[in-house]
Amino acid sequence: MTNPRADRVRDVAKLAQRSARQRRGLFLAEGPQAVREALRLDARRGTRLVTEVYASDSCLERYPELGELATATGALRLATDEVLAAMADTVNPQGIVAVCRYLDASLDDVLARAPRLVAVLCRVQDPGNAGTILRAADAAGADAVVFTEGSVDVYNPKAVRSTAGSLFHVPVVTGVDEGELVSRLRGAGLGVLAADGYGVVDLDVLQDESAARRLSAAPVGEPKGSGDSSSSYALEAPTAWLFGNEAQGLSEEELALADARVAVPIYGDAESLNVGTAATVCLYASARAQRLGVGLKTD
Amino acid sequence: MTNPRADRVRDVAKLAQRSARQRRGLFLAEGPQAVREALRLDARRGTRLVTEVYASDSCLERYPELGELATATGALRLATDEVLAAMADTVNPQGIVAVCRYLDASLDDVLARAPRLVAVLCRVQDPGNAGTILRAADAAGADAVVFTEGSVDVYNPKAVRSTAGSLFHVPVVTGVDEGELVSRLRGAGLGVLAADGYGVVDLDVLQDESAARRLSAAPVGEPKGSGDSSSSYALEAPTAWLFGNEAQGLSEEELALADARVAVPIYGDAESLNVGTAATVCLYASARAQRLGVGLKTD
Repeated sequence: MTNPRADRVRDVAKLAQRSARQRRGLFLAEGPQAVREALRLDARRGTRLVTEVYASDSCLERYPELGELATATGALRLATDEVLAAMADTVNPQGIVAVCRYLDASLDDVLARAPRLVAVLCRVQDPGNAGTILRAADAAGADAVVFTEGSVDVYNPKAVRSTAGSLFHVPVVTGVDEGELVSRLRGAGLGVLAADGYGVVDLDVLQDESAARRLSAAPVGEPKGSGDSSSSYALEAPTAWLFGNEAQGLSEEELALADARVAVPIYGDAESLNVGTAATVCLYASARAQRLGVGLKTD
Repeated sequence: MTNPRADRVRDVAKLAQRSARQRRGLFLAEGPQAVREALRLDARRGTRLVTEVYASDSCLERYPELGELATATGALRLATDEVLAAMADTVNPQGIVAVCRYLDASLDDVLARAPRLVAVLCRVQDPGNAGTILRAADAAGADAVVFTEGSVDVYNPKAVRSTAGSLFHVPVVTGVDEGELVSRLRGAGLGVLAADGYGVVDLDVLQDESAARRLSAAPVGEPKGSGDSSSSYALEAPTAWLFGNEAQGLSEEELALADARVAVPIYGDAESLNVGTAATVCLYASARAQRLGVGLKTD
């Protein structure tokens, strides 16, 4: 393909718009890393999520494994850099793009697999933040990422890019009602924690308590004082974390759904953490407690 | 001020360019949060970092504390939203901008204060990443953030925005040669860790070892096997972390400067973490070990 004004090129480019994506149930993966992860997922599962691949000769030469995977689909078409630039949201898609079917998993399927760590994005609006959290959730070994109703579209080109391929690793559930979600999560044996800068439970305290249980040692550090900051939530237990909107955080209704409102401690003068940073710290704290706590009873 | 084409408006708008910033030693803080933190810093220190404040009536009414601080400078001028939009890099500066002097601290001053936690950005290029790391460093209680030669300009408008005010909390050192920096840090009693996805030392192992020392308990969890993954670096010791360029990570030369190459564990299928996410996990791990390890000898 050499004509950047061809109808097919325009059809692909239209996937930058949410309405076109939703109508067709398709989105665009851009660049070697994203396309490779998409093709690997198909190869692993025997599915056909990737419906079209467009690549330049030089890209296929530079990434032979990618070339092989793309050729095996039977859906590969060679294209010029000009055509690829016209298709893609990025200025430079690095020689390859792929049209992919929506990946949404159903909540039923996710819960049937007894998840131990789930990230829930409650009305997160920034595509970069959403992608970063999905990537961090993948790194922390989360079993699923859920986008509630009113969240940014995970298939937005910038969100897809920010996941750096993790969109093709972690099951994603979208458009879920929060109230229903939380009761379903609880039914599947997960506790629910709200990440909340104003939370009375300190994440460090939960980590300390978890470490103390694991080591059967005395409670760690200073006496915790009375009241809410001494929580009984076992961080090593299966957990769903709720992360809120960038500007408003979690709403009162969302906070009320959780077993505890947990704050990432701020040791310095920062007023708050950005939601991606907070989510990373929370998910890694859970992953670490769960990994270390394997074999422990969590009553 | 009502004329968005006035010379003074253009002068301020030019601060979006690095060359203009460097020539004048000035940068722009945009929005109520950044301007408030800048003014508070001046009030706290008795300095005059803020040289000009431009604000709309409605903004000063909405944020009375900000209005008071800005009025006290004697450098406040009322401006229309049109003027403010013409001055600012953002489409919507939310009614206030301030021209500020460069904040750079000298490495001498930073080291004289016996820092315990320092973040070093080695050729980090993306202003959003740089700002996010600075904000995370502030949250983790870091004593300084150092930008080596070849890093993005911390006074870039997007970087300033991404710090969410933390630029005015944490001493920032810029333009430092890496080799000299590391020997100066060592001379000040800091150990040096390189955050490296390919590192042989697992951050979890360092955290486990630190926890075990603190609790005087047996080594935690599974036997660690032999070789490099069992490190002797004490995470509770004063530490400078090196974080690398987004695309290339740390160079061999940079890695060779460190006491250990430390990887954030990846529990899932993500290939890597973005540098902001990795930095957050590393800095919080150090902060937590240092906080808990207070009073311990760290030999």
